[in-house]
Amino acid sequence: MNDSSTWHYENFDSTGSAIGYRITRKLDEAQSPFQKIEIFESTDWGNIMLIDGAMMLTTKDNFLYHEMMSHPALFTHADPKRVVIIGGGDCGTLREVLRHPGVESATQCDIDEQVTRMAEKWFPELCESNSDSRAELLFDDGVAYMAHCPAGSVDIVIVDSTDPVGPAEGLFNKAFYESCFKALKDDGILVQQSESPLMLLDLIKEMRAEMGKAGFGTFKTLPFPQPCYPTGWWSCTLARKGGSFDFRTDDARNKPFVTRYYTADIHTGALATPPFVAEALGE
Amino acid sequence: MNDSSTWHYENFDSTGSAIGYRITRKLDEAQSPFQKIEIFESTDWGNIMLIDGAMMLTTKDNFLYHEMMSHPALFTHADPKRVVIIGGGDCGTLREVLRHPGVESATQCDIDEQVTRMAEKWFPELCESNSDSRAELLFDDGVAYMAHCPAGSVDIVIVDSTDPVGPAEGLFNKAFYESCFKALKDDGILVQQSESPLMLLDLIKEMRAEMGKAGFGTFKTLPFPQPCYPTGWWSCTLARKGGSFDFRTDDARNKPFVTRYYTADIHTGALATPPFVAEALGE
Repeated sequence: MNDSSTWHYENFDSTGSAIGYRITRKLDEAQSPFQKIEIFESTDWGNIMLIDGAMMLTTKDNFLYHEMMSHPALFTHADPKRVVIIGGGDCGTLREVLRHPGVESATQCDIDEQVTRMAEKWFPELCESNSDSRAELLFDDGVAYMAHCPAGSVDIVIVDSTDPVGPAEGLFNKAFYESCFKALKDDGILVQQSESPLMLLDLIKEMRAEMGKAGFGTFKTLPFPQPCYPTGWWSCTLARKGGSFDFRTDDARNKPFVTRYYTADIHTGALATPPFVAEALGE
Repeated sequence: MNDSSTWHYENFDSTGSAIGYRITRKLDEAQSPFQKIEIFESTDWGNIMLIDGAMMLTTKDNFLYHEMMSHPALFTHADPKRVVIIGGGDCGTLREVLRHPGVESATQCDIDEQVTRMAEKWFPELCESNSDSRAELLFDDGVAYMAHCPAGSVDIVIVDSTDPVGPAEGLFNKAFYESCFKALKDDGILVQQSESPLMLLDLIKEMRAEMGKAGFGTFKTLPFPQPCYPTGWWSCTLARKGGSFDFRTDDARNKPFVTRYYTADIHTGALATPPFVAEALGE
């Protein structure tokens, strides 16, 4: 192994656990108006992005997250044409969304342009759809963007943010969810990353409660592996104004693009809520 | 948080990643003829057992592993009556196996009695079926035990061991698998923990190759979350002499016992091999 490698650890207070990586060197660093962004090279995980010291993504395992943040929602909606991504500055979710030929426009609104500039440089594969004519990249406040979104204009809102502290705090409360609710069409879907199903069920409960206050009526939390996040097990929560989480199984089975994790059967599997999660969420 | 807490990290050379826990104190320690066993108290994961410094289990998340090491195999076999567990000294797998009313006898053969003594003391809930009249606890060499097992006498062999280094090294090669093959009835199933599907696919491939040399004809690797093991994503591999991995779905759906993770739908989901895993395994 590389003689100059060292171990970088991140302690997660809320889970009482830590995750670490063997890194070889710091590749880049920038202080934006919002946060400090660092890129490290690792021995086994490719490049790693940290924001304010918190793990954001690695070359090796980000496909799990990006595929699960997008395809379950897009195959649940009957015909998603207009997608908004709040956060998502690394552009990986945008890339997955644009794999769907039926999507006519996808707007990514991340407050920090510097995240995207770093992603273009160190995770270019995630940015390969940024010049797609259907893509719009905005660098602005996602809370304000959603508040000003025309009513009933959006099919899917994907909230691909950091944890509910710091710049992303405003993306986890009733006021923001009300903006999403208003912007969505009647059959619209809101998706948000919802932390660890093992250790952070209270957060998922709280998130659902706030979404409920904003008008959303049905919820489904889909777990998936995500080694670089606390406990290595993560989730996204889908919310609808009403209606079920049945998905277009045949379309997912015959999707005209390649994925590394997501399949129709993986989607079906993720809909199977483990009993201890169902119990905690009162399902 | 507890002022005296400290962070304990374990670096995994083979994955270039680390996992850590916030621990409050060491509860116990023993040096057996085979290995050093330590028990720590943690802030969020209950008790933790380390063997030679390597994480074995936590109170919080062991149910994921123990349920997935047992129920998929037991619901795949048409009528499992005789089960052998090699390793498994914490007795958690034994407990899950004995939840099946049809099981007539389950032998657990772990080389290190001290592991079971420590489990009885610090993880008593895992040992609650040790006095079941169907249970036999042996403290002996699992390789020798399987070599002397009467031919065609066993329905399911579960290899619930540490990693393929140290005492468990002999449980990952053709000679051991030949003993299992001989001991199993024609419709028998071998199950073995098979490490991380994200980072250790070469190991799974090698394991399958050795099983194949011993005569096993069909294989299925089921992923599941296991936060305390490298990458937080783990797997078990099932091997059969022949035949499929269809399972008794209705029996699993109507099982007469409670589980916290395993359900028929979770089982179906785990049978959905992610494309990147299928590709690496040549499926």
